[in-house]
Amino acid sequence: MSKKVAVVMGSDSDLDTMRPCVHRLQSFGIPAEVRVISAHRTPAAAEQFASQAKDNGFGVIIAAAGKAAHLAGVLAAYTTLPVIGVPIKTSMMGGLDSLLSMVQMPKGIPVACVAVDGADNAAILAAQMLALSDPDLAGKLAQFKADMAAEVAEKDRTIGDKL
Amino acid sequence: MSKKVAVVMGSDSDLDTMRPCVHRLQSFGIPAEVRVISAHRTPAAAEQFASQAKDNGFGVIIAAAGKAAHLAGVLAAYTTLPVIGVPIKTSMMGGLDSLLSMVQMPKGIPVACVAVDGADNAAILAAQMLALSDPDLAGKLAQFKADMAAEVAEKDRTIGDKL
Amino acid sequence: MSKKVAVVMGSDSDLDTMRPCVHRLQSFGIPAEVRVISAHRTPAAAEQFASQAKDNGFGVIIAAAGKAAHLAGVLAAYTTLPVIGVPIKTSMMGGLDSLLSMVQMPKGIPVACVAVDGADNAAILAAQMLALSDPDLAGKLAQFKADMAAEVAEKDRTIGDKL
Amino acid sequence: MSKKVAVVMGSDSDLDTMRPCVHRLQSFGIPAEVRVISAHRTPAAAEQFASQAKDNGFGVIIAAAGKAAHLAGVLAAYTTLPVIGVPIKTSMMGGLDSLLSMVQMPKGIPVACVAVDGADNAAILAAQMLALSDPDLAGKLAQFKADMAAEVAEKDRTIGDKL
Amino acid sequence: MSKKVAVVMGSDSDLDTMRPCVHRLQSFGIPAEVRVISAHRTPAAAEQFASQAKDNGFGVIIAAAGKAAHLAGVLAAYTTLPVIGVPIKTSMMGGLDSLLSMVQMPKGIPVACVAVDGADNAAILAAQMLALSDPDLAGKLAQFKADMAAEVAEKDRTIGDKL
Amino acid sequence: MSKKVAVVMGSDSDLDTMRPCVHRLQSFGIPAEVRVISAHRTPAAAEQFASQAKDNGFGVIIAAAGKAAHLAGVLAAYTTLPVIGVPIKTSMMGGLDSLLSMVQMPKGIPVACVAVDGADNAAILAAQMLALSDPDLAGKLAQFKADMAAEVAEKDRTIGDKL
Amino acid sequence: MSKKVAVVMGSDSDLDTMRPCVHRLQSFGIPAEVRVISAHRTPAAAEQFASQAKDNGFGVIIAAAGKAAHLAGVLAAYTTLPVIGVPIKTSMMGGLDSLLSMVQMPKGIPVACVAVDGADNAAILAAQMLALSDPDLAGKLAQFKADMAAEVAEKDRTIGDKL
Amino acid sequence: MSKKVAVVMGSDSDLDTMRPCVHRLQSFGIPAEVRVISAHRTPAAAEQFASQAKDNGFGVIIAAAGKAAHLAGVLAAYTTLPVIGVPIKTSMMGGLDSLLSMVQMPKGIPVACVAVDGADNAAILAAQMLALSDPDLAGKLAQFKADMAAEVAEKDRTIGDKL
Repeated sequence: MSKKVAVVMGSDSDLDTMRPCVHRLQSFGIPAEVRVISAHRTPAAAEQFASQAKDNGFGVIIAAAGKAAHLAGVLAAYTTLPVIGVPIKTSMMGGLDSLLSMVQMPKGIPVACVAVDGADNAAILAAQMLALSDPDLAGKLAQFKADMAAEVAEKDRTIGDKL
Repeated sequence: MSKKVAVVMGSDSDLDTMRPCVHRLQSFGIPAEVRVISAHRTPAAAEQFASQAKDNGFGVIIAAAGKAAHLAGVLAAYTTLPVIGVPIKTSMMGGLDSLLSMVQMPKGIPVACVAVDGADNAAILAAQMLALSDPDLAGKLAQFKADMAAEVAEKDRTIGDKL
Repeated sequence: MSKKVAVVMGSDSDLDTMRPCVHRLQSFGIPAEVRVISAHRTPAAAEQFASQAKDNGFGVIIAAAGKAAHLAGVLAAYTTLPVIGVPIKTSMMGGLDSLLSMVQMPKGIPVACVAVDGADNAAILAAQMLALSDPDLAGKLAQFKADMAAEVAEKDRTIGDKL
Repeated sequence: MSKKVAVVMGSDSDLDTMRPCVHRLQSFGIPAEVRVISAHRTPAAAEQFASQAKDNGFGVIIAAAGKAAHLAGVLAAYTTLPVIGVPIKTSMMGGLDSLLSMVQMPKGIPVACVAVDGADNAAILAAQMLALSDPDLAGKLAQFKADMAAEVAEKDRTIGDKL
Repeated sequence: MSKKVAVVMGSDSDLDTMRPCVHRLQSFGIPAEVRVISAHRTPAAAEQFASQAKDNGFGVIIAAAGKAAHLAGVLAAYTTLPVIGVPIKTSMMGGLDSLLSMVQMPKGIPVACVAVDGADNAAILAAQMLALSDPDLAGKLAQFKADMAAEVAEKDRTIGDKL
Repeated sequence: MSKKVAVVMGSDSDLDTMRPCVHRLQSFGIPAEVRVISAHRTPAAAEQFASQAKDNGFGVIIAAAGKAAHLAGVLAAYTTLPVIGVPIKTSMMGGLDSLLSMVQMPKGIPVACVAVDGADNAAILAAQMLALSDPDLAGKLAQFKADMAAEVAEKDRTIGDKL
Repeated sequence: MSKKVAVVMGSDSDLDTMRPCVHRLQSFGIPAEVRVISAHRTPAAAEQFASQAKDNGFGVIIAAAGKAAHLAGVLAAYTTLPVIGVPIKTSMMGGLDSLLSMVQMPKGIPVACVAVDGADNAAILAAQMLALSDPDLAGKLAQFKADMAAEVAEKDRTIGDKL
Repeated sequence: MSKKVAVVMGSDSDLDTMRPCVHRLQSFGIPAEVRVISAHRTPAAAEQFASQAKDNGFGVIIAAAGKAAHLAGVLAAYTTLPVIGVPIKTSMMGGLDSLLSMVQMPKGIPVACVAVDGADNAAILAAQMLALSDPDLAGKLAQFKADMAAEVAEKDRTIGDKL
């Protein structure tokens, strides 16, 4: 059976931004667990979750946080699982603080950063990782890509009507 | 046998920055192929490489580029394999142009972005992805993490001598 | 007969921003075709369109995209026609991500970038290019410039009434 | 005979950056004139040059300037010829001041902005504009593109030797 | 009689931002003239106004513009009067484009830049310049400063009531 | 009895942002005084307040200001008490102007800067400083930390219901 | 006896930047301990150190780190002692990544951030905190301030000789 | 006799940057006094100097400072004379910290900001202010402008030789 993906948020105020991530994982049939863990307010929970994630059946961890967004890096410190970071938009230059806090990780502990508020892409990226050993999931990703292309092609055909 | 990792550069001037990436992959025993492919000057090669990468035995693609760094996104457009982006440092705010060009991917086509010039971390992240179905590689990553911790601990013990 | 101008958008959500571009082209009597092509979701369409654009009677390509705005660069990779890029405003510093992704092209493949959301100016720039071999169009541009000056002059005359 | 391209610099200190632009134009057989005109120190020369450029046989104006880089915009104010702007690198965030001063033109007066220090690309873009009515030049551009691709392909073939 | 101050806007859309500037000048008894002159759309008007401003009785020119805000610099090119620049807020990082376009003037042609949307301060600064040879105006400025201090002191006294 | 904390604002328009700071101090039982003092409009009040703050029973000064936010630095110039700066959000890149104006203090005169609009954290930081010699307050801080952790843990338990 | 100050670095490569911090503490007679602890490579050491710091006699923690500079925040998560952050200069806009990663802490867990590379000021700030209950140290700070003023005054007197 | 101009530096390390300012003032025959006054380390000197500057025969104050560059604003707080700010280049994005700290002054207390390191322009701007009531100085400024134009024109004539 497929490994699970954890969707960890630094605050439940990030839920609206991250809901598409959970739904996308579900659409691929990937079991997802949603957690609220703060790198700063519940550091012990962060440590416990990350250090046991592999043994608890997780394959990928998605971490969403804003401002001084340490969550992804802190989780990555305690696991060798790939950690995907979703920088949450803030009023500081549209989330540049979140982005730099997540992506500029020092040598040795990578975080796989996606776009600011890139919740959907985080799910797709997690699926791509799991699909490396799951041909069925790989097939779903190929289909998803084809569907997207068809959707854009349809918009291309009808754009003239909207001018 | 393990899937291969491609290390693709937009220009051979990126080689010095990316050499640690190749060496890190090798240290994990991961077969790596190094390519010079330009999203803009050899777009046909980019398409051909990316669309056939899965069938050619690749598991992960690492793409390094600077300035308007489209390479990772262009490769990701043609494959469902995970694509890791390494933004190369430039004189435009230290690589902010490369970083934003790589990380701010639109919905549907993620790129897993690491730090500016984060060549080493790109290799580690690729290893983490491949280790999802390779317990031996997972063991090497755990050992690597322990070695790093020991190295920092040793520096902690001796820092007093350097004051 | 005049060469056509293509107005290509990465997403149909860019249409409201780009409509003034289409209207401006039409006001100059320049035949325009509007397309929705995604550099990432329909890369094959991008390649096909750009590589055949010259043979299909296009003289200039205008490409509008936001965030990691690769569209203009990807189209420029497949054609020797001039490509004008319109960076779409985003929440990341007001479109700095789109701007840098478009304008910072590497040596060999230029994109002619206009202002963030500069749809109207993209049309005028395309007209200026086509007018190089079209004296009638050049005359229209001269008239357009004179009209703008008159409009500002009129506002200058009446500004006192609005204080 | 082909229209001329003007390469205008705000200061002769920009010459080293712009020399590749002149050489690229020459390599395409495009007659080029190099000028030093300051939007601020010799505004009358700027006006005179730009307002007469079309009558004097110019087809495209390339303007290079740094910091509060008004030159391209000021020239564009006086002509309907396409004006290409080359923002010169500065110590202010690597030329962000030059870039924003050039590219963020108001509605009605476009500047075709290329990358910071993008002298070579400015020449190629000018050639692309002139090639719209010059099949011979269009052929040279196609050959140039093919040569670039071949050069990258050659680097791709030999990169393995440099690891 | 006192020299006049010109309040020049690049667009009449800047009027709401600049109205406090005009009112502040009037409150000091300084004769003000409001103009709409575009550096790019009415460059001849800009030249004519600036080159004759001194002879026409102006002492200081205040220029407000946004985006690629060349107006202040272009006026300064044609006069030796002090030119005060007011960068207008834009969506590009809150007016950073306007600010850098105005303040980063090259050697020889200064612009006295105030804060983004700093209309009121532009008027005060103009008054400070004129007050150098107008003791009566200097007295008004001293009184204005005292009034401001009293206003803040009053707010300091009553802040406790608002908690 | 505990030392007092001063909450100084550059303008009473900052009160809504700073109210949580005052309330947090009160929740810890720390006596707080709220002041409106402008570094620029009431510099004499700033000097008088800061130079006498220690003798008047203050232990920590919290200073909130926006834009060219000199208040914290100016107060710090006149006292050896720790000064905490709260940069107020502005439209210039979300408060980057306030942040840099506060945090980039020259050698010799530190300001303890918290996040943009970080009013609550300023109060907590002040409490941490005072708690160094106040075991009772230290106990309250420990309890506050435990309460926060419990609150996040509760949200973690119930997040599944909100998907 | 005075509480100790910890000077914690994320990497021993930060030592040259932080040495003035240690020396300044020593000049005030404050006992200092220097540690190398990585939030990401030795997270267990970070937790252990911070959670026991108070019991081990520390009063203030100074944490220096660069890029995604999580160290100060991670230590603050485990203690109620005040934590001072020193963002280390990087090539990413001169340390903006370090600064934003440190200063933009979420509600509840403050970090007292000083300037980029502000090692000396971190020591002075720590001394100011400890001086709240140490009149002798407060006296040293007052003397230090007076010495600085005298030093600047001396430079003021002699600046004319250097023109 | 002409009013004096003060050239105030926050640190004598700014002298090399500001020397051209002093020399330019001297070339116009304007009496200049150079001072080293720190807004933070010698605030009393700043207050004393600024509040007495008018009575001491100064007409304009030029203030140069870097990082959290409060000097110009602090001096402006104590005088109604025009204060010109010169932001000194730093490693933080090329002086953006200095620039924003200087230019973003709150309503009521303007600073006339010139370009980063714009020492020469500060002198010219001061001269323009003093020339409002000094026809002889106005003549020198007109001559200076003409000389600059001639110098650029000469470079324009000879640029062809340097290609």
